[in-house]
Amino acid sequence: MRKINFNPGPSQLYFTAEDHMRKAFREGIPSLSHRSKLFETTFGEAVAGLRQLLGVPDGWHVVFTGSATEIWERCIQNLVATHSAHFVNGAFSKRFYEIAVQLGKQAQIVSVPEGNGFTDVPQTQAELIAITHNETSTGVMLPMDFIHGFRVKYPSALIAIDAVSSLPYPQFDFDAVDSIFFSVQKGFGLPAGLGVWMVNERCHQRAVELRSKKIVIGSYHSLPSLISYSKKNQTPETPNVLGIYLLSKVVDDMLRRGISLIRKETEYKAAVLYQALHQHPFIKPFVLQPGLQSKTVIVAAGRHTEELSQFLAGKGLQAGEGYGSFKSAQLRFANFPAHSKEQVELLADLLSAFAASH
Amino acid sequence: MRKINFNPGPSQLYFTAEDHMRKAFREGIPSLSHRSKLFETTFGEAVAGLRQLLGVPDGWHVVFTGSATEIWERCIQNLVATHSAHFVNGAFSKRFYEIAVQLGKQAQIVSVPEGNGFTDVPQTQAELIAITHNETSTGVMLPMDFIHGFRVKYPSALIAIDAVSSLPYPQFDFDAVDSIFFSVQKGFGLPAGLGVWMVNERCHQRAVELRSKKIVIGSYHSLPSLISYSKKNQTPETPNVLGIYLLSKVVDDMLRRGISLIRKETEYKAAVLYQALHQHPFIKPFVLQPGLQSKTVIVAAGRHTEELSQFLAGKGLQAGEGYGSFKSAQLRFANFPAHSKEQVELLADLLSAFAASH
Repeated sequence: MRKINFNPGPSQLYFTAEDHMRKAFREGIPSLSHRSKLFETTFGEAVAGLRQLLGVPDGWHVVFTGSATEIWERCIQNLVATHSAHFVNGAFSKRFYEIAVQLGKQAQIVSVPEGNGFTDVPQTQAELIAITHNETSTGVMLPMDFIHGFRVKYPSALIAIDAVSSLPYPQFDFDAVDSIFFSVQKGFGLPAGLGVWMVNERCHQRAVELRSKKIVIGSYHSLPSLISYSKKNQTPETPNVLGIYLLSKVVDDMLRRGISLIRKETEYKAAVLYQALHQHPFIKPFVLQPGLQSKTVIVAAGRHTEELSQFLAGKGLQAGEGYGSFKSAQLRFANFPAHSKEQVELLADLLSAFAASH
Repeated sequence: MRKINFNPGPSQLYFTAEDHMRKAFREGIPSLSHRSKLFETTFGEAVAGLRQLLGVPDGWHVVFTGSATEIWERCIQNLVATHSAHFVNGAFSKRFYEIAVQLGKQAQIVSVPEGNGFTDVPQTQAELIAITHNETSTGVMLPMDFIHGFRVKYPSALIAIDAVSSLPYPQFDFDAVDSIFFSVQKGFGLPAGLGVWMVNERCHQRAVELRSKKIVIGSYHSLPSLISYSKKNQTPETPNVLGIYLLSKVVDDMLRRGISLIRKETEYKAAVLYQALHQHPFIKPFVLQPGLQSKTVIVAAGRHTEELSQFLAGKGLQAGEGYGSFKSAQLRFANFPAHSKEQVELLADLLSAFAASH
């Protein structure tokens, strides 16, 4: 039996993903030319669906890359001449910072210990401010007020939001940020191999400006190249056609279910899990401040975690390991749209049952 | 009915691709963690299979990207400080050159008209010589003697071979070149979204040397990063896991069929098609010199091509359009391992039948 996959990514497939894949083969999508009309239709449906689901305004562009990791690199390459600033509270926000350093930028780091959010926002001259909405390694979700507070403080900086393991849950104010991105193998419940990058026209213009100053902004996946193709519902290269098709279909399913229901269910399921952790004798939420506790990646820390993971596996549930040095001291549970209420309730019951039987 | 797809890419799926996809879902591959043991096994099988199929020596590294277009960029970024040289005889070899220009390199262009090969090899101080083995846009396949002649002439240059639309057919001398790459949606008959890059240790050392001189070689997909992960059978980012799995399976199928049989069949099928073109009243091979006529992408030029394409479509065969300005004056026919002898014979018969009925 295939386990219910609570790993935060690649994670549980969306309920309909396998059916869509079968249909894709029947329709010849895996060998569809990326220069065909049908591809353009598929691309257009994926983008229109995402716009509707996430409330992406008309002035924004939606483009595709191979991964969210690629978007970290393209973000720095296209939007930063010399200075970026990075809010770092875990392994993934740190990786974004490191990529800026590898690309030769003067990257400022604002760092707090794992499990924490940020209280101080220091002065910065950075052209780009990089913020990780949901730190997948520790389960910290930064408050929306914090995310949306940068615009007023730093009106000339571009604000880039890594929403890799939170979308489609969060409702961003697109006037308060400039770039948002994610990858499809987390909250969208799809096979890995596709990153989705949403940028406003300010980002586009910044890339054009850097290029005019002879700064190298990349080639086929520079923002101007990505955007000029996206306007024709195309991509510069032969992309992951199947991935774009599956995304268009799952987004359509989510639209039919309704984004407000998905958001409410996400909050309900998170509440069920956090309650189980609060009442648990061995494990507690790793993130202590309720306002920072992620709704989409719930991290538990405490005793007997490896034994608990095995217990869950025996019942058909796959927990995520702790990240990096927390590997054996924590467990991570994804709470994505693909995880049904019943599955999360079962998980909560089993957490209690483990405590009772131990 | 799904058409037999002779488009040169994305092209006809390999016979077994759909079965492997079904098995992948049964085995949970679409939500498999890229940090799991099973992923490492899959990665290892894909690489070991490719080594065996293509005769890749032990000293070479095999790494994965999102596309072959990405490899054009990574090649320039990792292997060129200032000077590259590009042999250009069509749209795709030209794109490789343009990417070098976009990345700020001094790119030398050695250009001949479409449909031609190269007679003169001029002097060059380039650090990298870029050669497109098979120009997908025009159906020119450069002779092996030409490809392998650069090493002796330019011992200090790195020699990069774009084999996107020819592998697994050609048998390269890995001592005479330094970097070979392809993408899986052509000769390997798989869904698009994965590039395969083979490099020797000289390439690796060149990238390390550039980095030590503070030249930016990229971040997660720099050669040193790609290679250090590949040594652990891993990738720096969450990759197209499903794509790597499918590649490992199709390569295994090809190994069972035998590479020498695949090569012989490719030559037989190409001979059948070129014979049909030579005898045809309306269309002829676009490439006139027999020694340059591609075995894997056969291009026909002449009269009534659009009508012929519709005739073939009515019989369940999809021809590829001419590329770019040749869109309506040429037809392209892929001859990959996924195209059976029977299918190619049918195509040849229908080409004659069209002439007879016209």
